Amino acid sequence: MDVIAAIAFEAGKPLEIDTVQLEGPRDGEVLVEIMATGLCHTDKYTLSGQDPEGLFPAILGHEGAGIVREVGAGVKHLKPGDHVIPLYTPECRECPSCLSRKTNLCTAIRSTQGKGLMPDGTSRFSYKGQPIHHYMGCSTFANFTVLPEIALAKIRSDAPFDKVCYIGCGVTTGIGAVLFTAKVEPGSTVGVFGLGGIGLNVIQGAKMVGANRIIGIDINPEREAIARKFGMTDFVNPKDLGPDGDLVGHLIEMTGGGLDYTFECVGNPTLMRQALESAHRGWGVSCVIGVAGAGQEISTRPFQLVTGRRWIGSAFGGARGRTDVPQIVDWYMEGRIDIDDLITHKLKLADINLGFDMMSRGESIRTVVEY
Amino acid sequence: MDVIAAIAFEAGKPLEIDTVQLEGPRDGEVLVEIMATGLCHTDKYTLSGQDPEGLFPAILGHEGAGIVREVGAGVKHLKPGDHVIPLYTPECRECPSCLSRKTNLCTAIRSTQGKGLMPDGTSRFSYKGQPIHHYMGCSTFANFTVLPEIALAKIRSDAPFDKVCYIGCGVTTGIGAVLFTAKVEPGSTVGVFGLGGIGLNVIQGAKMVGANRIIGIDINPEREAIARKFGMTDFVNPKDLGPDGDLVGHLIEMTGGGLDYTFECVGNPTLMRQALESAHRGWGVSCVIGVAGAGQEISTRPFQLVTGRRWIGSAFGGARGRTDVPQIVDWYMEGRIDIDDLITHKLKLADINLGFDMMSRGESIRTVVEY
Repeated sequence: MDVIAAIAFEAGKPLEIDTVQLEGPRDGEVLVEIMATGLCHTDKYTLSGQDPEGLFPAILGHEGAGIVREVGAGVKHLKPGDHVIPLYTPECRECPSCLSRKTNLCTAIRSTQGKGLMPDGTSRFSYKGQPIHHYMGCSTFANFTVLPEIALAKIRSDAPFDKVCYIGCGVTTGIGAVLFTAKVEPGSTVGVFGLGGIGLNVIQGAKMVGANRIIGIDINPEREAIARKFGMTDFVNPKDLGPDGDLVGHLIEMTGGGLDYTFECVGNPTLMRQALESAHRGWGVSCVIGVAGAGQEISTRPFQLVTGRRWIGSAFGGARGRTDVPQIVDWYMEGRIDIDDLITHKLKLADINLGFDMMSRGESIRTVVEY
Repeated sequence: MDVIAAIAFEAGKPLEIDTVQLEGPRDGEVLVEIMATGLCHTDKYTLSGQDPEGLFPAILGHEGAGIVREVGAGVKHLKPGDHVIPLYTPECRECPSCLSRKTNLCTAIRSTQGKGLMPDGTSRFSYKGQPIHHYMGCSTFANFTVLPEIALAKIRSDAPFDKVCYIGCGVTTGIGAVLFTAKVEPGSTVGVFGLGGIGLNVIQGAKMVGANRIIGIDINPEREAIARKFGMTDFVNPKDLGPDGDLVGHLIEMTGGGLDYTFECVGNPTLMRQALESAHRGWGVSCVIGVAGAGQEISTRPFQLVTGRRWIGSAFGGARGRTDVPQIVDWYMEGRIDIDDLITHKLKLADINLGFDMMSRGESIRTVVEY
């Protein structure tokens, strides 16, 4: 079938809107009509060409919501009309990872997903007869896409697509890191390094679980207001500490010994180290969420670990896609979490490149494309 | 009173056996007759002068066992005749750390202990009228010493001093890292990097909790036999992998994806990185036990953490001294752990420098001085 897509023909070039061909779902696969998709920094990173694993041409996009239109043979849990969120981290419930009860990083289709292909090793997308790569197993920058059944979370049908699409990545990544990865307890003191979309979702996750004090750290003072709205209790702008400012020392002093939990939400190795070292001696947990550039490394003195700090990381918020994502959608619908205030811009697919431009200029928290 | 001690007058010089003066216990303090003490790498490190926090002159030694001979005013839990193990990590049960239930790193007397002094800011030891520093709050290289009550574990009176002194540091550090810090579960696959005293105790801890597979890694093939006796199931000598050998890849391959838990027992930052990176994607926990040299740093790609590995550390095995050390003594007396085979040499105090020489040459696992 013909579908409309924003195609990434090559690295570093704007997306091009054109018609591509999409094959129907094969065994275990599902055809989904994408109703809305968010634009995420990961899409931008891959499009820039800096991602060493980026493949072109490709249909990018991994933060969508839509409706099942057709199911392939053997599909058991979904039917046409079901509302779904695509999962770049699937949940097969059968692989060693899913059965470990210790990780959300399902490995069922990892190898083909990394190659931009469906599990059978082929692509459903083509342009003028040439195959186009899938992206993160989702490819939501097209109004229709095909995914394996295990990579779709079934959600309630009254949830608005243009909001809950954000649960497909950013919301779950931030809230999940607090709830599922770090398991922050009520009464905790939490540090959030970077107040972009992920950081704001970490803040509302920390508020949700009853953290006492939520300290946001950002060099952009314009983020203070919305962060306070989401639950931040204290704001620290490292620039206010002066050119020789000691952010770690400042945070340890203001918390009387360090933070119980810290979250790095930027992807900056220096900030990752500061987040670890401002965690409390004896029990502080520091969680890396941000994705660093290729080849970048983190470092610290091992004494930081020997004296009880723990350095961990989170991917997709530690959330199991089919199990936890529908729960987060429910929380949104019940008013327990706020998504509306984070979606600062809405565009049509034709204007998608404008969305990436705004992201580059730091003007948006989340931009959503509605089909 | 006059006591016999091995005195560290200055860095880099042998210890000198001589008589020193010891004041009696003040408020909350206890006079202990030391019956036996182990020689630990930490004593050697401080004596070498490489420890930037080392203070001289000092009475070193922190791995002892003895008998209470006199108690100061206000001592509630100990009386003359009680058998005790000195604790370089005390347990006051009242400070924020003790009350956190999350760490064993009691902070009650940390600042004075770091200065080589008793909690009131003075020393009990002197030599020809000049004060001599305490060391790690213990100073077991003297036949009598004074400690705060909170830094003494009361143990059963039938336990042999020349064996259970080792529980004062090495045994607890190794076994405790498995039981109290990493909390290894039955069925786990465990990697032990470095088969010295700490590594062998990690192995017997992993065996005790029911690990399925315990892989020991060491460049010294002579350690294989005793490690197998303690529970090691597989031995890897990195030298056998050739000059371009990939230890991490080898371990991931032999475990079908990586180790559930790894322990670094040497203090080598390269090994710490390998221990982290050979932990299993999604859930592998890597625990730093070894103490690196001053200024050394560990590093890795943050992707290692984001994909689910956890980097942690352990000091004194995460054990609470007064609560857990008596339990470990019981385990030894019940035959649940082996200490006898680890104590390879016994000396009199007069020969203590020979013990450090053997340690330098890698000839001993643990040398114990009996008074």
